[in-house]
Amino acid sequence: MTETTSNQMWGGRFAAGPDAIMEAINASIGFDQRMAAQDIAGSRAHAAMLAATGVISDSDAEAIGKGLLTVLSEIEAGTFAFSTALEDIHMNVEARLKEIIGEPAGRLHTGRSRNDQVATDFKLWVRDQFDAAETGLIALIKALLGQAEAGADWVMPGFTHLQTAQPVTWGHHMMAYVEMFGRDLSRVRDARARMNECPLGAAALAGTSFPIDRQMTARALGFDRPAANSLDAVSDRDFALEFLSVASICAMHLSRFAEELVIWSSAQFRFVALSDRFSTGSSIMPQKKNPDAAELIRAKVGRIYGANTALMMVMKGLPLAYSKDMQEDKEQVFDAADNWMLALAAMEGMVRDMTANRDSLAAAAGSGFSTATDLADWLVRVLGLPFREAHHVTGSLVALAESKNCDLPELALSDMHSVHKEITQDVFEVLGVDNSVRSRTSYGGTAPDQVRAQIARWKDAL
Amino acid sequence: MTETTSNQMWGGRFAAGPDAIMEAINASIGFDQRMAAQDIAGSRAHAAMLAATGVISDSDAEAIGKGLLTVLSEIEAGTFAFSTALEDIHMNVEARLKEIIGEPAGRLHTGRSRNDQVATDFKLWVRDQFDAAETGLIALIKALLGQAEAGADWVMPGFTHLQTAQPVTWGHHMMAYVEMFGRDLSRVRDARARMNECPLGAAALAGTSFPIDRQMTARALGFDRPAANSLDAVSDRDFALEFLSVASICAMHLSRFAEELVIWSSAQFRFVALSDRFSTGSSIMPQKKNPDAAELIRAKVGRIYGANTALMMVMKGLPLAYSKDMQEDKEQVFDAADNWMLALAAMEGMVRDMTANRDSLAAAAGSGFSTATDLADWLVRVLGLPFREAHHVTGSLVALAESKNCDLPELALSDMHSVHKEITQDVFEVLGVDNSVRSRTSYGGTAPDQVRAQIARWKDAL
Amino acid sequence: MTETTSNQMWGGRFAAGPDAIMEAINASIGFDQRMAAQDIAGSRAHAAMLAATGVISDSDAEAIGKGLLTVLSEIEAGTFAFSTALEDIHMNVEARLKEIIGEPAGRLHTGRSRNDQVATDFKLWVRDQFDAAETGLIALIKALLGQAEAGADWVMPGFTHLQTAQPVTWGHHMMAYVEMFGRDLSRVRDARARMNECPLGAAALAGTSFPIDRQMTARALGFDRPAANSLDAVSDRDFALEFLSVASICAMHLSRFAEELVIWSSAQFRFVALSDRFSTGSSIMPQKKNPDAAELIRAKVGRIYGANTALMMVMKGLPLAYSKDMQEDKEQVFDAADNWMLALAAMEGMVRDMTANRDSLAAAAGSGFSTATDLADWLVRVLGLPFREAHHVTGSLVALAESKNCDLPELALSDMHSVHKEITQDVFEVLGVDNSVRSRTSYGGTAPDQVRAQIARWKDAL
Amino acid sequence: MTETTSNQMWGGRFAAGPDAIMEAINASIGFDQRMAAQDIAGSRAHAAMLAATGVISDSDAEAIGKGLLTVLSEIEAGTFAFSTALEDIHMNVEARLKEIIGEPAGRLHTGRSRNDQVATDFKLWVRDQFDAAETGLIALIKALLGQAEAGADWVMPGFTHLQTAQPVTWGHHMMAYVEMFGRDLSRVRDARARMNECPLGAAALAGTSFPIDRQMTARALGFDRPAANSLDAVSDRDFALEFLSVASICAMHLSRFAEELVIWSSAQFRFVALSDRFSTGSSIMPQKKNPDAAELIRAKVGRIYGANTALMMVMKGLPLAYSKDMQEDKEQVFDAADNWMLALAAMEGMVRDMTANRDSLAAAAGSGFSTATDLADWLVRVLGLPFREAHHVTGSLVALAESKNCDLPELALSDMHSVHKEITQDVFEVLGVDNSVRSRTSYGGTAPDQVRAQIARWKDAL
Repeated sequence: MTETTSNQMWGGRFAAGPDAIMEAINASIGFDQRMAAQDIAGSRAHAAMLAATGVISDSDAEAIGKGLLTVLSEIEAGTFAFSTALEDIHMNVEARLKEIIGEPAGRLHTGRSRNDQVATDFKLWVRDQFDAAETGLIALIKALLGQAEAGADWVMPGFTHLQTAQPVTWGHHMMAYVEMFGRDLSRVRDARARMNECPLGAAALAGTSFPIDRQMTARALGFDRPAANSLDAVSDRDFALEFLSVASICAMHLSRFAEELVIWSSAQFRFVALSDRFSTGSSIMPQKKNPDAAELIRAKVGRIYGANTALMMVMKGLPLAYSKDMQEDKEQVFDAADNWMLALAAMEGMVRDMTANRDSLAAAAGSGFSTATDLADWLVRVLGLPFREAHHVTGSLVALAESKNCDLPELALSDMHSVHKEITQDVFEVLGVDNSVRSRTSYGGTAPDQVRAQIARWKDAL
Repeated sequence: MTETTSNQMWGGRFAAGPDAIMEAINASIGFDQRMAAQDIAGSRAHAAMLAATGVISDSDAEAIGKGLLTVLSEIEAGTFAFSTALEDIHMNVEARLKEIIGEPAGRLHTGRSRNDQVATDFKLWVRDQFDAAETGLIALIKALLGQAEAGADWVMPGFTHLQTAQPVTWGHHMMAYVEMFGRDLSRVRDARARMNECPLGAAALAGTSFPIDRQMTARALGFDRPAANSLDAVSDRDFALEFLSVASICAMHLSRFAEELVIWSSAQFRFVALSDRFSTGSSIMPQKKNPDAAELIRAKVGRIYGANTALMMVMKGLPLAYSKDMQEDKEQVFDAADNWMLALAAMEGMVRDMTANRDSLAAAAGSGFSTATDLADWLVRVLGLPFREAHHVTGSLVALAESKNCDLPELALSDMHSVHKEITQDVFEVLGVDNSVRSRTSYGGTAPDQVRAQIARWKDAL
Repeated sequence: MTETTSNQMWGGRFAAGPDAIMEAINASIGFDQRMAAQDIAGSRAHAAMLAATGVISDSDAEAIGKGLLTVLSEIEAGTFAFSTALEDIHMNVEARLKEIIGEPAGRLHTGRSRNDQVATDFKLWVRDQFDAAETGLIALIKALLGQAEAGADWVMPGFTHLQTAQPVTWGHHMMAYVEMFGRDLSRVRDARARMNECPLGAAALAGTSFPIDRQMTARALGFDRPAANSLDAVSDRDFALEFLSVASICAMHLSRFAEELVIWSSAQFRFVALSDRFSTGSSIMPQKKNPDAAELIRAKVGRIYGANTALMMVMKGLPLAYSKDMQEDKEQVFDAADNWMLALAAMEGMVRDMTANRDSLAAAAGSGFSTATDLADWLVRVLGLPFREAHHVTGSLVALAESKNCDLPELALSDMHSVHKEITQDVFEVLGVDNSVRSRTSYGGTAPDQVRAQIARWKDAL
Repeated sequence: MTETTSNQMWGGRFAAGPDAIMEAINASIGFDQRMAAQDIAGSRAHAAMLAATGVISDSDAEAIGKGLLTVLSEIEAGTFAFSTALEDIHMNVEARLKEIIGEPAGRLHTGRSRNDQVATDFKLWVRDQFDAAETGLIALIKALLGQAEAGADWVMPGFTHLQTAQPVTWGHHMMAYVEMFGRDLSRVRDARARMNECPLGAAALAGTSFPIDRQMTARALGFDRPAANSLDAVSDRDFALEFLSVASICAMHLSRFAEELVIWSSAQFRFVALSDRFSTGSSIMPQKKNPDAAELIRAKVGRIYGANTALMMVMKGLPLAYSKDMQEDKEQVFDAADNWMLALAAMEGMVRDMTANRDSLAAAAGSGFSTATDLADWLVRVLGLPFREAHHVTGSLVALAESKNCDLPELALSDMHSVHKEITQDVFEVLGVDNSVRSRTSYGGTAPDQVRAQIARWKDAL
């Protein structure tokens, strides 16, 4: 493939070629070659449509179609020589096509422009990533359902402010993340549906006078319909921004779970043991088993949201239609997509491999006055106290237990009477951790039956 | 209303009250009083449910319901004395309720916690804002449709890179924004539907042992269903983040249009005249008429996306369930919502009031070799040149015109022949601006008929 | 004070007044009244200079100076009626001045514009905040030095990846934050010095033809010099962005310490007890003592960095000179400054009040194979093993201890010999936690002597 | 070089090797190989110090030093086979060193850890980038000084709100950017000085018991001193965040200038002609000459600030000391640095090559009532009107001129008298554009003499 200087492509108007700095800042082939398959699929659909509408001959279309497949196979084989002087994937493919099939290659660009071409390529690429995210999320949800099912009735402390609040079940905690990733899944599907409109045929910005059939190319490429305004079609990067927004919120969920895994793996908590496969050691401290994967997942929200910030700022205040600023869209989305998929896969692996330490969980669940609310609720239910008064009585009992250096179930009934006379022996029943979690049967509550009902609902839904 | 120190509320466990700094950083009543109506609606629904399920008596429920209406009327009348020591809107309302109705007030908090209460209040508030955004977007779209209809066939330069590219129509340009704001509308609706699950009854984090009916409160408050996991229900701020993400993308669209209005109002462009109502003057330069509203709208994407960044960073890495960090959610969303609504309203007003300068638009459309693509397309269509060759021929003709200091339609046929022999007199027909836009009849193209078809489609859809 | 419609101020060019939406989006008096003192100081300096250079008469200057003090006292007394129609603090002050002193008030605005006036006011305000941050940082550093001094030799686990790594001292850990906040202090001072150039007299953008003395006003307002380019002076918001950048990095440090305090306060760690003054309770769980202040501080980095993001995005791509977009600068900086100062104060209070739990720290320091590195180093130093081999031997000993469910010091010498024959009884000396920390005497290391040397260095420096 | 599985490096404690996903998320060699030269420099300094302090033998140190140079030459020659299983640049270098020199290689890691090693490498890398930024900024400032000098007295419109405000000089406008990039330079220098403390010898987190000399390694690597706290030294990424903050503000300045160049290149403005070298053409519109370089520079602020956001979010809430999250620091900084340097170089090239269109500038400067302020100032100075009244009179004259479709200098004196009786013929002198700019002689004003004085000051300073 011969080197072509850029200004040859732009026609005879330019006196001087770009210098090295210009080429470095301008060329996108270093990254947009990643859209080669999408570019060729788009060109093949365009060529077939041009023939169907009589804009080019069937034989030209056939030559183009076959030639593009040759180009694709060269790229896939790694034998294609990408040229920076040819700027981008579109020009690289077309230049090579011309070498292979000659003159008909020049007819391919009829009725389109690089502006609609790149928008189409990029949308196809992003759409694939929405599909990959859907797959990754479903796999992660299934891994969580597996943990939830195994431990639907294992007790553990429920925290607020990282302070022991009330006992909950392991299954319930896992299912909280199922809800989060379930919302992510819903956002992925909505965003994919919204972006599935085809820019091809918008041409530079105004549409074209060639009698093209945009419905046909849209259909051929799996779009629901052509984009309805050609100026918008080449200027729109909503699909990329919505991809990054959806990914960011999901990555935030991942960061929360990762934080919990890091804390739960500490010597002080010992709530879970991560597998060796998802841990690392230290070059200097031989005893270390570090939750590196969890930490790296925790960090990914920064990277993905950073990409979101970058593209938002790029798009801010850009007049219509296409501006070269938009070329900064792809590297952000590529990097965010790669890291999102990697984080989903790593989290799924960690969740499948990790082992809950039931004994530590149960011991922690029973300490820290975790059933104080059960006591307060008992005072309301059995003695008829208003909740606010019951809360106050319970607070006094907690202070009493603290002063005796014991937990609530270890208080004597006489101790309790020193705070409130009407308390009876029955109260000790609600101070047990298992009773506590079993009692929380409100919809969506932590009772094992509620947890199992939600697991069943999700299994049906997937 | 008597002052209560915070630690009285938390029961008897605390030895020392918070000092001034703690109160300053901790109290939220300064801003969450904005959710008073939502808080009272939620409490009324909760009390009615508690009575229906037999947890409290009907007479208590009635007293609570009426008392809460009294509190609401005091707040609406501005006579309510908010107390910082009572921390938040929930405690302020409940303390006042107790003053009004006495002991039954203490029964209201049965089977719930501030964690699910604040999540419910905030969701109700955000839901209202989604509805307000829907209204604002529809009004703006209608204003744009009005401009598009009036100028469906007015010609103007279409720009890429802010360089004259091809002539387009004013209506087509307006409709590009209709597509953008239409996608915003679609995002608003998806997000609203997704978030419409009720947290109430999740209690602190684990659900409750009281026999509450979460379906009933969900229904009463207009939610589609109760949230399915109590840990998630009190820890989830996705609805706020999705609100901010959707608002940010919309604000980005607004910033692009605002940028165009600023540029178009310049002495060099003179494409539009903004009304006096949406312009300002200068304290030092008496001749100035400044597009301040457009500039302020352009800036709002920063403010709204800044709120998004703030809340994303707050939520990053938070373990379950509720952490106090989450209290930072409201001010960001309040400020972003206020500014989004204001920007939508100001943009709608500007669009309704602005006057396109048809003469300037037409003059600009016809200069800058704007019909060069039409010429190239003519060479393809009539002379059968491959597009790439036609592009090259056209480039040479542009260079020729430039050297003669004229535009393409002013070249003589003999000039044209110096570049390509087969060009005929017919070519001059496509060099006219009106012919150019009329010719771009591809779906979504700039031809007036296409524009009118899209206007009709949108009118149907709204 | 009579109401004036805005367009009266802009002179006779405007036919219609702004409508309500325009006024809502345009007026800044709602927030810029916070700069009243700065505005009046600037005007007083300007008036004095105008008299000194003969631009206005001494009697006019005197009337203006006295009148402005009256305005200031009204504002401070809360009796000043701010008017939205008068848009901003500058117009509000000047209009009131005119009511008080009549015609001479109209001479105050000679040789300046609102563009340089607002830049001056805002710089004065930000400069005060740099000074407040300096004070807050020094107080916090002193509180940390107090903790460090008390516990220079208390042992605690040093973590990497939240896994026990090596024993360190409490004092050493506190001093790590002293270094961080010390860098913040250095950034505050650099930024303050850089921004201390006076915009006053830049006028609208081009300077003025009046013979003003910008050195004089700069000096009077405590600036090092006048800003050297009038276009830049009215367009520059670097000082605000650098304030936000510096605040963000400091808030990140605060978030790290806050995270540690939250974790350390958990029932599983019990490393510190926060005082009641900086803790809160729960409305539903009577036993809770929550580290709310730490959580809120942890969240502030989001809020402050969100403000940074907002203003960066606002400034992106703004052409020179002043654009109205810049009016969005103040609310971001006000909010960030308030929250930064509050977070610094709350952290200082928490640090002063908190109690390290020496027993828990020591117990944790001695578990988790924390002296494995000491063992490896002993193998290098005493037996002459290459470090990599020593690391491997130690790893095997850790695995052996784990399999025996004990820690390293509890292994028998015979156990050790099963891994490496040449180990001697002396090894047990380095397995003690106190010996371990005392041995790390490299500069900046955790040995108590090193810690005390750093405390002394900092005390000297402050 | 043989493949080593990661867990071999971490010693004998691990039962299972990492799987592919773990390796993909964990390994950093894909990007940190960029720090190979820094890593080897750091290791050479460390080995020399270990010998000087007697920790290792001189012969070992010599072998290590020579071996490391061999490794470096292999890397520079491109013959080094990087291994993902060896995770990072540190392990890759050390493993290869062992192949070359055998057992002494194992002694290199004495008294240090990867934690301090990577901090040192990264600081050296970032320090080089600060130096590169300094060079780039100075070159850009010189290019601007060249433009300013050439056009110190060329008149052009000064804009506020993109509306013609007052005439300014081309040189003055260029010098505004000199001030901005000058502040960037100052920030670069402050940040570089602050970060120049050496982490080496902090070891894993606690320092070391080997008698190392941290002053010596600090000096050898060009640092001002060793970092004073070992926990902080391995946990600190302030230098990276400050690099990104400084780069972001500079990129914001670049975005503003780029925006102006895009607008100034439009057919409507025609203020400048960019060179062909920094322009591109269109694949479909043969007449286009697009300011792509300016647009790409405008976009870079998004990319760089996105990196800042990413790393800020990564660091938020990380407990001490090193956590694996921090590995996300490098790619952000690498990408930001590359793009910052590229943007600086491209802007410098554009500025050097661009041609101001003096005629267009002058014509635009004289229209749009640009000397209205001069008229108002004349009324103050000559007729003694208070400024506010002069402003009002001028506004009426502007309205009059507008109604007559002329500019101010074209009004007849009689027209002027219809608004204010005392205006004399002399007024026409200040209505000339050249007189206007010459009159603004206040310090930092737009008068050519002022501009030339500032140019001279900057030439001295550089």
